[in-house]
Amino acid sequence: MTTLMKIARSGHVTEEMKIVAEQEGLSPEIIRDKVARGRIIIPRNREDIRIVGIGEGLSTKVNVNIGTSMVVVNLQMELEKLRVALKYGTDTVMDLSTGGDLRSIRRTLIKEANVPFGTVPIYQAFIETAKKKGAGVYMDEDDIFNTIEEHLKDGIDFATIHAGITKDLVEKYIKHRRLAGIPSRGGSMIAAWILHNEEENPLYKNFDYLLELFAEYDATISLGDALRPGSIADAHDELQIGEMLKVAELVKKAREAGVQVMVEGPGHVPLDKIVADVKMEKRLWDGVPYYVLGPRPTDIAMGYDHIASAIGAAIAAANGADLLCYLTPAEHLSLPNVEQVKEGLIAAKIAAHVADIVKLGERAMRWDIEVSKVRSKLDWENMFKLSLDPDLARRIYTQFNIPVHTCTMCGDLCVYKILKNAIEERRARSQNQ
Amino acid sequence: MTTLMKIARSGHVTEEMKIVAEQEGLSPEIIRDKVARGRIIIPRNREDIRIVGIGEGLSTKVNVNIGTSMVVVNLQMELEKLRVALKYGTDTVMDLSTGGDLRSIRRTLIKEANVPFGTVPIYQAFIETAKKKGAGVYMDEDDIFNTIEEHLKDGIDFATIHAGITKDLVEKYIKHRRLAGIPSRGGSMIAAWILHNEEENPLYKNFDYLLELFAEYDATISLGDALRPGSIADAHDELQIGEMLKVAELVKKAREAGVQVMVEGPGHVPLDKIVADVKMEKRLWDGVPYYVLGPRPTDIAMGYDHIASAIGAAIAAANGADLLCYLTPAEHLSLPNVEQVKEGLIAAKIAAHVADIVKLGERAMRWDIEVSKVRSKLDWENMFKLSLDPDLARRIYTQFNIPVHTCTMCGDLCVYKILKNAIEERRARSQNQ
Repeated sequence: MTTLMKIARSGHVTEEMKIVAEQEGLSPEIIRDKVARGRIIIPRNREDIRIVGIGEGLSTKVNVNIGTSMVVVNLQMELEKLRVALKYGTDTVMDLSTGGDLRSIRRTLIKEANVPFGTVPIYQAFIETAKKKGAGVYMDEDDIFNTIEEHLKDGIDFATIHAGITKDLVEKYIKHRRLAGIPSRGGSMIAAWILHNEEENPLYKNFDYLLELFAEYDATISLGDALRPGSIADAHDELQIGEMLKVAELVKKAREAGVQVMVEGPGHVPLDKIVADVKMEKRLWDGVPYYVLGPRPTDIAMGYDHIASAIGAAIAAANGADLLCYLTPAEHLSLPNVEQVKEGLIAAKIAAHVADIVKLGERAMRWDIEVSKVRSKLDWENMFKLSLDPDLARRIYTQFNIPVHTCTMCGDLCVYKILKNAIEERRARSQNQ
Repeated sequence: MTTLMKIARSGHVTEEMKIVAEQEGLSPEIIRDKVARGRIIIPRNREDIRIVGIGEGLSTKVNVNIGTSMVVVNLQMELEKLRVALKYGTDTVMDLSTGGDLRSIRRTLIKEANVPFGTVPIYQAFIETAKKKGAGVYMDEDDIFNTIEEHLKDGIDFATIHAGITKDLVEKYIKHRRLAGIPSRGGSMIAAWILHNEEENPLYKNFDYLLELFAEYDATISLGDALRPGSIADAHDELQIGEMLKVAELVKKAREAGVQVMVEGPGHVPLDKIVADVKMEKRLWDGVPYYVLGPRPTDIAMGYDHIASAIGAAIAAANGADLLCYLTPAEHLSLPNVEQVKEGLIAAKIAAHVADIVKLGERAMRWDIEVSKVRSKLDWENMFKLSLDPDLARRIYTQFNIPVHTCTMCGDLCVYKILKNAIEERRARSQNQ
């Protein structure tokens, strides 16, 4: 089976590579070369979706997670979240549904998602096994791999696969004292399975078969970080680093098989360790695209995790992370509602842009320069247009219902007005001399 | 006149130094030594305020700006902002009022502010001169210095003084092409004054007299950054760096006079330059406490400047900034309302804490560890208690009105529940062997 990666290696520049080159202002040959070497991925298993390149030298992309939970099953709300996410410019979407009719929810959401769409198939395998056989840990290899294939058939463009959490790491885990356990849901399911069955992780053991499946659909594997830290106190412990080493093996295998692959990263990590984390992972995995959840540089920001996460994400991306998974203000507290999805996405987009100013320089700064130009002209309409959320910007501008040409912060004491007279006076004087 | 700094130099440990030592878990002698060398300040010109240490080795502090504008004059609202700022834990407050009866507003606010209270006296001098004489640039040295003394008499603990923007820098400014001009309001006033009067900045020229005034009240000078960048494209231009060099002279003079001094920093600065900025300023100014506004690593975040600012502030503080001036979501758009003050403050406090984890290690991480512990026990009441905003955390937790012991994100698929059975089963098996 041919794959985009194999085509790139053959030297051929495809339509999607040209589109990415155009979007990013780079040459198609650069894109081809990096797709061939696995440093850029273009996740795509469906015809009619937006082409999105993720990786080295490209602008930082943002992902939004949506989906039902076991206790809040409201497909209409999830559809609204998807629409809001698309409206405010997410680059990819993941359906993490765990409640209701998972198949039909996924198929409904994917139909509306015109951006790369990802899932975590192990959730469905675990949940359906629990329903059929009484407990998720009774799932067998067929339960797992049939579910993955079902997702691929449904057209998902990428899937999280927790293949790096091996039996020996789980053994270490139960001896190890970790403050916040295994915060990855898929990772917990696999760990519970390994403990119950006393066998190797089927996703690790059968990784070659998995690669055949993904090659058949030319979909992208996102290697999950099951042992990511759930508290900053757990960051960079031997479990996290141990899994990173396993994942490095798997990245190599995926590339050998010509299957596009990215790697997922933490989690809760102190600010200074985020830089180390990204540099280390890029080195260990030979520049594979890096997809980070957060990272959150503190555990305390309940209700404001989108802000903590924006701080960590900006640092991560400025140092090389390629795809930022948003977090909402509801993280650690509740399934998000529609408004919280929007808030989380915008915070992540700010982080991505802040990083792109560092990563891409002028290419990213154009937007800032445009804003600063219209700002010094007090051109409010264009300021709103250039905002991430024009309605909100306008609402704040008019919140005191006072008509001013400047803004209600300064009125006539606007810095752009104070100096104007003095400078004009000075110019007139110079001309008269 | 004796001052805290002079007392520290004499080797005496005062009550306020002991309090700071206790708050920060350091020895009183370290505090005394750093106050003596100007690396820590304890701004205080009134008896009954909270003692707050700002500087090297201490936890990062946060400042909230409140005050009327020329067009929105609502003392009740400003009082509410003050109360909200105190409730959510601001360390200092500044009154930046420019509208209404400035004297009586200041005196009302300062009475309720039990934390160090700062102002920017040049606003009042400029505004009152404009009313009396027709334009702010007609103010004379008496107008300026009498206003400063009036503020000191009113008990302000610190004041922003734009003494570093000299005549030669203003000359350079009008030749220089800057994208966003002079975004500092006080800086614009001084620049306009210099252009109109063709004389040296009176605050620079009479800095020795200013030091006498501040020594008399033992108040703290906060050296304003008039030429800070208002766009990331202007960051680190010759104007900003030129003013930094002037400010370095003034820091030296203030220390020689035994007057406590801190320095204000930018502004709009790209993420990677923020680190350089803080390192450079700490070096140039021999470790003087550094008070930053933002910094915002992008110009585009209208409506979300508190988030952009939290990103920049966390990096700045992790690299040595000591006091973070909050920004609200209304920045660049409007005077903030009460809710926006709260949002801005909480974002700044998250940034400060994220930085403290890097700066202070274990000392700051205790809070995170406590949160992670109660989180893995699903102990919601204590999670709320440990939140920055317990009401908000509780509201989000219950937003779908579904009673669950876990949370509505995961329900029974909670990671802390998934693994529990498998681990218990495993333990039972081991014991039976």
